[in-house]
Amino acid sequence: MPEASPAHDHALIRDLVGRAAHLADEGTPDDYRTLYTHDATWTFGASTQNGIEEIVASARQRRAEGISGPETATRHLVVPLHVTVDGDTADAVSYFLFFGDTTSAPVVRVFGVYTDELTRTPEGWRIHRRVSRVG
Amino acid sequence: MPEASPAHDHALIRDLVGRAAHLADEGTPDDYRTLYTHDATWTFGASTQNGIEEIVASARQRRAEGISGPETATRHLVVPLHVTVDGDTADAVSYFLFFGDTTSAPVVRVFGVYTDELTRTPEGWRIHRRVSRVG
Amino acid sequence: MPEASPAHDHALIRDLVGRAAHLADEGTPDDYRTLYTHDATWTFGASTQNGIEEIVASARQRRAEGISGPETATRHLVVPLHVTVDGDTADAVSYFLFFGDTTSAPVVRVFGVYTDELTRTPEGWRIHRRVSRVG
Repeated sequence: MPEASPAHDHALIRDLVGRAAHLADEGTPDDYRTLYTHDATWTFGASTQNGIEEIVASARQRRAEGISGPETATRHLVVPLHVTVDGDTADAVSYFLFFGDTTSAPVVRVFGVYTDELTRTPEGWRIHRRVSRVG
Repeated sequence: MPEASPAHDHALIRDLVGRAAHLADEGTPDDYRTLYTHDATWTFGASTQNGIEEIVASARQRRAEGISGPETATRHLVVPLHVTVDGDTADAVSYFLFFGDTTSAPVVRVFGVYTDELTRTPEGWRIHRRVSRVG
Repeated sequence: MPEASPAHDHALIRDLVGRAAHLADEGTPDDYRTLYTHDATWTFGASTQNGIEEIVASARQRRAEGISGPETATRHLVVPLHVTVDGDTADAVSYFLFFGDTTSAPVVRVFGVYTDELTRTPEGWRIHRRVSRVG
């Protein structure tokens, strides 16, 4: 196991945010279990998903409705802006762009901001709280 | 204080470039003081802002004119491409996309390049010289 | 020479992916020699370029045809999502957006994914295998 360092934590957290985007587009709903803590919350405007089961269920529903995920010609472009590590917790702010029509004439459907609180777990860094804001 | 390392400097500089984007969108003009050295210059085409006071004043003017900043439905998507650290100075090149209409149908108004020279100060890395090119 | 560390490798690989974008837009075809191994392959759909000479020749052709490179008002926005280092090899997945009309009204012409295998060489990290997928 590589030694912990602030720089390594930064790299791992940027990777985590990137994997969250990639798995939203190409993974399965259950893959979200590798991204979020068991008690994670994800707030999107007035709506909050409480706990990993609700987060997975919500991803499953978006897939069922064709909103996002494989075969929907959508992708999440997520760019981490800054990461602040404080021991076993961290904060990260990222811009996200939700693209549609990626197989033809790609268009930005949503521009927003993720504000993440992250936690170091025995399995690595996980998102503990994500707040999505649009605009 | 964490030990300096090339990797940590890379992470801090990527964070600085990201914070510059974030604060341009959600911060105050005075927040630019946390990003630039006192004697920083920012060149945009034929125009150059000399020193932090001109940089802050220019940000204030863009806010007053509704060009960018909070409540203007604009955002800066900034992606650092590569960072080269040489002791207490560094170079970074980033692509920036200035988006408008972010709360409705986001559109790229400007695509450009930042070429940054950075300096390590007692308060952390700061931008010493930024050149913005469009296109 | 700075000591190797997982975090430093991460930073160097992100830089390499970023330089590949930057040089595709502003460099020369021969600059690709600083990005790829001698025996690198680049697969784009059903087509594969085998070895650095084919990769350079293909870049030269794109320039000759005005498809990309300087003076074509195009740019590659490339965002590394996650990097996994295993000793002297690494994997990286990035999203790329190929923009046209960057000097007037920038438009996303292509949204795609780079899946890269990288190798540590005496001259630094290099791309050994790149697969580009569109959509």
